[in-house]
Amino acid sequence: MNISIENLHNNIKLIFVEAGCKEKDAEIVADVLLAAEKRGIPSHGLVRIKDYLGLWAKKRLNLCPTPRIIHDTPVSATIDGDNGLGMLVAHYAMNLAIEKAKTSYTAWIAVRNSNHYGIAAYYSMMALEHEMIGISMTNANPLVAPTFSIDKMLGTNPLAVAIPSGKEEPFIADFATTPIARGKLEMYEKMNKKVSLGLIQDKFGNSVDDPSILKDGGAILPLGGDYEHGSHKGYCMSALVDIFSAVLSGAGFGPFVPPQVSYLEPKANAPGIGLGHFFGAMRIDSFQPKDEFKDYMDLWIKTFKQSKSMSDESKVLIPGEPERIKEALALKNGIELNEKVVEELNKTLKELNIKNPF
Amino acid sequence: MNISIENLHNNIKLIFVEAGCKEKDAEIVADVLLAAEKRGIPSHGLVRIKDYLGLWAKKRLNLCPTPRIIHDTPVSATIDGDNGLGMLVAHYAMNLAIEKAKTSYTAWIAVRNSNHYGIAAYYSMMALEHEMIGISMTNANPLVAPTFSIDKMLGTNPLAVAIPSGKEEPFIADFATTPIARGKLEMYEKMNKKVSLGLIQDKFGNSVDDPSILKDGGAILPLGGDYEHGSHKGYCMSALVDIFSAVLSGAGFGPFVPPQVSYLEPKANAPGIGLGHFFGAMRIDSFQPKDEFKDYMDLWIKTFKQSKSMSDESKVLIPGEPERIKEALALKNGIELNEKVVEELNKTLKELNIKNPF
Repeated sequence: MNISIENLHNNIKLIFVEAGCKEKDAEIVADVLLAAEKRGIPSHGLVRIKDYLGLWAKKRLNLCPTPRIIHDTPVSATIDGDNGLGMLVAHYAMNLAIEKAKTSYTAWIAVRNSNHYGIAAYYSMMALEHEMIGISMTNANPLVAPTFSIDKMLGTNPLAVAIPSGKEEPFIADFATTPIARGKLEMYEKMNKKVSLGLIQDKFGNSVDDPSILKDGGAILPLGGDYEHGSHKGYCMSALVDIFSAVLSGAGFGPFVPPQVSYLEPKANAPGIGLGHFFGAMRIDSFQPKDEFKDYMDLWIKTFKQSKSMSDESKVLIPGEPERIKEALALKNGIELNEKVVEELNKTLKELNIKNPF
Repeated sequence: MNISIENLHNNIKLIFVEAGCKEKDAEIVADVLLAAEKRGIPSHGLVRIKDYLGLWAKKRLNLCPTPRIIHDTPVSATIDGDNGLGMLVAHYAMNLAIEKAKTSYTAWIAVRNSNHYGIAAYYSMMALEHEMIGISMTNANPLVAPTFSIDKMLGTNPLAVAIPSGKEEPFIADFATTPIARGKLEMYEKMNKKVSLGLIQDKFGNSVDDPSILKDGGAILPLGGDYEHGSHKGYCMSALVDIFSAVLSGAGFGPFVPPQVSYLEPKANAPGIGLGHFFGAMRIDSFQPKDEFKDYMDLWIKTFKQSKSMSDESKVLIPGEPERIKEALALKNGIELNEKVVEELNKTLKELNIKNPF
């Protein structure tokens, strides 16, 4: 069944208001979750609501947080997110980065005591209308083994960078630092399909094709797969996102990120506080007059668009382009909800005595 | 033959003074090239001298540059490198980042009109003694095809990040955004060996094992290899390094980076000026009291060191560790020079009438 963006937005908002969010906060949550659905990343959309509400019901997540600044300079800050729903903390932090950059050209915000924040791109894109480059990254629950390791030490730790342009559409990179996401593994498992080698390993460190291997001591591999194919570079990337998000802020790093699902208990005596993010905003006139930058960025985009494709079916892409195409379609046709996701959501709402708008 | 670090340093310095560098500049060049040799990355050491001198002989590179600031804010600047030898321009720019960060907490420098700068890690490591995180990246000659493309559009575009620690050794990540470097392909070719699939493609975009394929329209793949293994993420990383290094600064981007070897001619009417770099320096007390940060970074390093290894032969590594081990050995035993490299260098010195200290 297809549902219009507007209806979906209202429904999500109603759920979070009913659960205890302030109205303007529920608006933000609906915006971020819908951005994922529209951009073709449903793994970070509606399907997550049951997890957020499950954590809230166990008093492990705050739907009404008051983030506060615990360290401050003219170009940076560290935020304590009051154990808030990640979208609310991240929205506050990215806004602070943008406000600071307005007077200080560039600004950097480290965040601790937060939770899963949805799609990384959303926050980086907030910078675009201010003619700034936006940067957003977060750590995540440990599923990934460093090169040569058999322990799950890192999350899929995404990095998003949005870069303003002139006449062309902006460049928006948003990528996990792993070759495959957990959501995709679950999908393969449900379909009883094998995955390619070079994506996951078993408990001994062998590359395997069984998508259920994470339940048996397996792990996701870093981008690159194995050492010969540069997995130590993917490990470096993922480690950098972890250190910027958690060590700079004082959040739980690597294996100590608190579980973002209610059926897993947090580790006792884990160091750090909550999950961590890192945000940046850079005015493009920090380096060049802004119109010159935009013209030159347009030329970059046009040049790459014109590079020769392997085939008519597989065109060279500019980061952000595939998501923009999906978004335009979603705005026109609405979004087709997955029945199973709606069913699970309905069940959660019933259990938690939340009025069901669906 | 093994040669002591001290002798090697003197010899490199003599060559560059003889060729026209100021003495203090020749010192910097020797330092950076030797850092590569000591850290086990000879592809960025002595072997490059013939290329730098070849470009200088053709008046395509300035051994006596005066970099100047062409755009300035309290937290950022854009530098024109006066078409200088990359090490000299990069050293100037990273110092400027550190000086600015001393008063402004964080600082960001974009550089155009520069050339090949050696190992990226060198400049990021300059920040460590100032209790700052150091960031260094550069674009490079186009050898890499974006996902789904058959055109060489990007360089191996390395990124280096050095992060201070307390009692543990610092975290130093320095990695190309490709699974394999050109130097390594050449090595395989000389040895008449095939490479693994997933590293390079032929002119049609097929993954192949022939290391000489770049001469026949082939290209290096981005980190990840193919789309299924996340090569679009490697492409994003490489594109980000290109945009930060060249679009922010006004350097030649992607396919327009001027060739860093004298036997290839620059493209006519290419946009942008020279090769580009980007540097950052962030005081760790931008986010936390510095001793707290150092203690927590130590805990990160210790935690990752203790993660379970696949086997006794393949230990989990902390970025920067393997290079540190090699450096300690080199300081003790000197460096074994490759005879072929010395032979080629001798030939170049003779051709250019430069007194040969070897």
